[in-house]
Amino acid sequence: MKRTFLFVALLLIFSGAALAKKGPKNIIIMIGDGMGINQVQAAYTSNGGYLNMTDRCPYSGLRRTNSASDYITDSAAGGTAIATGVKTKNNMVGMSPDTVPLNSIIRLATLKGLSTGVIATHSVTDATPASFVAHRPHRFMHEEIAADYLASDITLFIGGGRMHFEKRKDGRDISEELRAKGYEIVYSLEEARKTTGDKLGALIAEDAVEPASRRDPDLLADATQLAIDKLSSNKKGFVLMVEGSQIDKGGHKNDQNYMISETLDFDRAVGKALDFAQKDKNTLVLITADHETGGVTVAEGHYGKKKVVVKFNTGWHTASPVPFFAYGPGAELFSGFKDNTASFYLMKDLLKLK
Amino acid sequence: MKRTFLFVALLLIFSGAALAKKGPKNIIIMIGDGMGINQVQAAYTSNGGYLNMTDRCPYSGLRRTNSASDYITDSAAGGTAIATGVKTKNNMVGMSPDTVPLNSIIRLATLKGLSTGVIATHSVTDATPASFVAHRPHRFMHEEIAADYLASDITLFIGGGRMHFEKRKDGRDISEELRAKGYEIVYSLEEARKTTGDKLGALIAEDAVEPASRRDPDLLADATQLAIDKLSSNKKGFVLMVEGSQIDKGGHKNDQNYMISETLDFDRAVGKALDFAQKDKNTLVLITADHETGGVTVAEGHYGKKKVVVKFNTGWHTASPVPFFAYGPGAELFSGFKDNTASFYLMKDLLKLK
Repeated sequence: MKRTFLFVALLLIFSGAALAKKGPKNIIIMIGDGMGINQVQAAYTSNGGYLNMTDRCPYSGLRRTNSASDYITDSAAGGTAIATGVKTKNNMVGMSPDTVPLNSIIRLATLKGLSTGVIATHSVTDATPASFVAHRPHRFMHEEIAADYLASDITLFIGGGRMHFEKRKDGRDISEELRAKGYEIVYSLEEARKTTGDKLGALIAEDAVEPASRRDPDLLADATQLAIDKLSSNKKGFVLMVEGSQIDKGGHKNDQNYMISETLDFDRAVGKALDFAQKDKNTLVLITADHETGGVTVAEGHYGKKKVVVKFNTGWHTASPVPFFAYGPGAELFSGFKDNTASFYLMKDLLKLK
Repeated sequence: MKRTFLFVALLLIFSGAALAKKGPKNIIIMIGDGMGINQVQAAYTSNGGYLNMTDRCPYSGLRRTNSASDYITDSAAGGTAIATGVKTKNNMVGMSPDTVPLNSIIRLATLKGLSTGVIATHSVTDATPASFVAHRPHRFMHEEIAADYLASDITLFIGGGRMHFEKRKDGRDISEELRAKGYEIVYSLEEARKTTGDKLGALIAEDAVEPASRRDPDLLADATQLAIDKLSSNKKGFVLMVEGSQIDKGGHKNDQNYMISETLDFDRAVGKALDFAQKDKNTLVLITADHETGGVTVAEGHYGKKKVVVKFNTGWHTASPVPFFAYGPGAELFSGFKDNTASFYLMKDLLKLK
């Protein structure tokens, strides 16, 4: 009788374990700024019919992107929707339309003791990373946004924008103030690799980082790997946001090569995140965009020849639903056609944040 | 001891049942011809921010659409990929590139005793329905495609194309030949509703059906409902293909109103399929497209005012990955970024067809 009881108890435990959804410990949010479906198709074609984001993620979805003020969002409201779950007005970062500061998923994770980070290939004070870290009524308040890093308690940040920290109108040196708070502030990835402390800021360019065609083609992938290596030492888990910032710039300039090289660069970083998630088995990787830029159409192409011809319809953003790709525990929840605010609540629930 | 044994046995049965995936009995495949993501966004906006396909399907995905001969597919190769799981050359229907006839999912279901049907708002001999029923090296062989209905053993078909059955160069009357095989051949939905036999062909227009702006706005939805009512009497299940045929024509003509009204018309039919699936609980509804037409960008819009401004980039098809929406048992399998041939194999497995 005792043995039978033990058997029943074990059976209950096993079936319970099989049925219960196990949440992820870590989340890596990857945002291709301005990366619509046709940006993905163009990069996919020029890469011979393969991308990490398309070929390694079992789930995909679509997101509607309008902001509180406009049918066509900008990166500030688009980033804020993803980061905080609230639709705000164009140009506002980390704030509701009536200027109430909002806790981002990065902030909530930080408060619960998880490690956190943001990476961008533009200034870390630009709209997308700012949406996760700062609270300002206008995205162009770069110096105020830089100062918001002081209160963020974020574990690490990597990107451009050194001038907004150190060459300011108000004479403050935010890098020095961050150092006083325990951050190691460095100016290249090489230096960043040598750091051993708990907190890191790598300001690797004065403003924007160089375009993909001129920078180290593995810069974003290397930065992503470095961040994962550092953040994953926290047993409580981590949340990391990685932005491919300049896909958008290629779209605005209607420059096909710029747009595609930045998308491929971003996808190499996606590959690093997926490599980690595959080994770790407890990391959710989410890949999406804030909006589409350029009204891109893929008009001609050849997979074997890795050639593609793109047409642009505008120099501005469009309302095209943006793609979503997901890998790891909970990934299936991110499928479907959803509002761009939906991911925040799903991430918050999966990480059991309050 | 006996009671404990019974308890363990029951527990095993329940956990087994909870873990095993239950396949669907019925599949409704809905194809919006030429319906890219921005066609969906335009219709969604002009409808005030709601569509059945976007708002009622928990899973979505993306499909790459190239054919065996071309980076940019036509409806023949696109339809054949969905229907048979094989990439063929542009213009070919239901055949491999080397002209071997292929069994479509409709044919395999027919052979296993399921009820089957196709519905189109163009001629039933047009590329998309032909891909599911016929085997011809060129989509424009309308009379030969009409004759292929004789060998198909399909339960019902509804759409235009009467001339290709009855006013033929070879003098044959395919409608009479179908009647000799037990089909009731009628010429309107009203007549179709009154039929009571096992087999039905409703040829409701000489060639294409009128555009959505001129036909009964519920024609496709009503045809879908009628088909579901008839096919669902088969206890073995059914497979139905419903095409919103003229979204593509709006794209080719760069006519925004035509494109949107056809998408909304198609979505009303999607609503009927989802209504049935929701009640039935054993029906999988799949909504996708064969390709995008027009290189559409949604440049302006307003959900509240139900207004939208679309720009076109071409009068031809593009390589834009097409959307996929799925509802019902097995729906999650259709997410991700997949080739347009993938759905055939997933459907075949789910229905256990050979």
